[in-house]
Amino acid sequence: MFGDVEGNRARVADAVETAARAGAELVVLPELCTTGYAFADESEACELGEPADGPTLEQWRGLAAAHRLVIVGGFCELDAEGTPRNSALIVDQDGASRVYRKTHLWDREQLIFVAGTEPPPVIDTSAGRIGIAICYDAFFPEVMRGLALGGADVIAVPMNSPIVGSPTEPLAAEVVLALAAAQVNRVYVAQADRAGPERGIRWANASAICDPDGRLLAGPVEGTTVLHSACDLERARDKALGARNDVLADRRPQLYATTNDKETVN
Amino acid sequence: MFGDVEGNRARVADAVETAARAGAELVVLPELCTTGYAFADESEACELGEPADGPTLEQWRGLAAAHRLVIVGGFCELDAEGTPRNSALIVDQDGASRVYRKTHLWDREQLIFVAGTEPPPVIDTSAGRIGIAICYDAFFPEVMRGLALGGADVIAVPMNSPIVGSPTEPLAAEVVLALAAAQVNRVYVAQADRAGPERGIRWANASAICDPDGRLLAGPVEGTTVLHSACDLERARDKALGARNDVLADRRPQLYATTNDKETVN
Repeated sequence: MFGDVEGNRARVADAVETAARAGAELVVLPELCTTGYAFADESEACELGEPADGPTLEQWRGLAAAHRLVIVGGFCELDAEGTPRNSALIVDQDGASRVYRKTHLWDREQLIFVAGTEPPPVIDTSAGRIGIAICYDAFFPEVMRGLALGGADVIAVPMNSPIVGSPTEPLAAEVVLALAAAQVNRVYVAQADRAGPERGIRWANASAICDPDGRLLAGPVEGTTVLHSACDLERARDKALGARNDVLADRRPQLYATTNDKETVN
Repeated sequence: MFGDVEGNRARVADAVETAARAGAELVVLPELCTTGYAFADESEACELGEPADGPTLEQWRGLAAAHRLVIVGGFCELDAEGTPRNSALIVDQDGASRVYRKTHLWDREQLIFVAGTEPPPVIDTSAGRIGIAICYDAFFPEVMRGLALGGADVIAVPMNSPIVGSPTEPLAAEVVLALAAAQVNRVYVAQADRAGPERGIRWANASAICDPDGRLLAGPVEGTTVLHSACDLERARDKALGARNDVLADRRPQLYATTNDKETVN
């Protein structure tokens, strides 16, 4: 619920417990899951945000240790200067943690947050090598490719996806992108979208878990729920496709390096 | 039909005429549409192939002029050394033409063809700025992005897509890729797949026309048919997404340039 930080932390604890009971080793939570998404302005973000070593880190360390799993999710970070950042936090069961600041800001986020300057990371954890992208970051195939080249087994995507225009059929546009990224990189993609009413926004309900063949393992689904699926990370470490192809080795970077200039026939 | 080059040229003429009657200004034909796909070996390709200025160019010039449209399609090219290339030919109504040689070879194509060394091109034609990728080329988001950065309004994808494993649901994997490429680049994607029996191969039936919002305008469909749709190319020249975003200007190439190295938390 927007602005109900304590209530949202309790909802996170419930969701992590539900996931743990289902056997989860990795839990992905939505973008800005402690505060809600639809900030009116920067000052509201400053009021609701917290430093990277604030109460969210403390809570997630407790949950990760208690349930022996890795948690990735979004929170409103206030940096050393007090500037709001749309960040993701990853916490391992031993308490190790890392913050990533969203590098591609969507729409009004540009009025509220300052974009990060470090690329989306790949983190070695007890649940495998986890790449992180936040919502609109995943719209850029370069981001997902970079995470795969960086060794990600699973790309975790905390997201809040407002519907732009009318929904696409038969799959939400954000689910199409997740399936495509999973397929061309032969990685798992686990994205957690927002659900429920928030200041009049309609959400795309794009939570999904995709496998390296570009198949839906779980989701999409309407409403608030916990999706889960078994993932065999060895499958994401084998980039072979059929008998003679390899989705990363078949790249021809020397042909991608330069922008193709527009040409005229003959 | 495999190996029936004269019959296939007649089928091309019929298809172009049908498309022209529907008002087509651009016609996209499948990969290797004059020969068929499933060559047993290189010598069969040498036997059925032709030089870039062979009878296919001559026929397509006639069709493009008669129907006042642009034709893109695949053919088996024999280069100056007689080496088979999996090529696409684009022909404008004034006879201007250009050949592109597939740069990402799928499976047994590697035993039959030599890959091209020039990047997929964007061609200024009477039907707009046409980018060309052949089948597995389009599996590489770098290719589709390069064509969009090169100014393509429409990316034409001649393809022959054998199904690998069981089909994906609810959309063929190749249609998911086309929708994703259309959406993230805000371009039209028009892909023409093979249909019908050929040496025991099952095809994905992935022919489709996608718009810059990532919506299906036509296809996919089973069997041999002519799909068509109106395309407003101005939409592909406006890369704005919502009020504050632009799918090309929002890229942060300085964050994509280096491969992300695998890291350990803390």
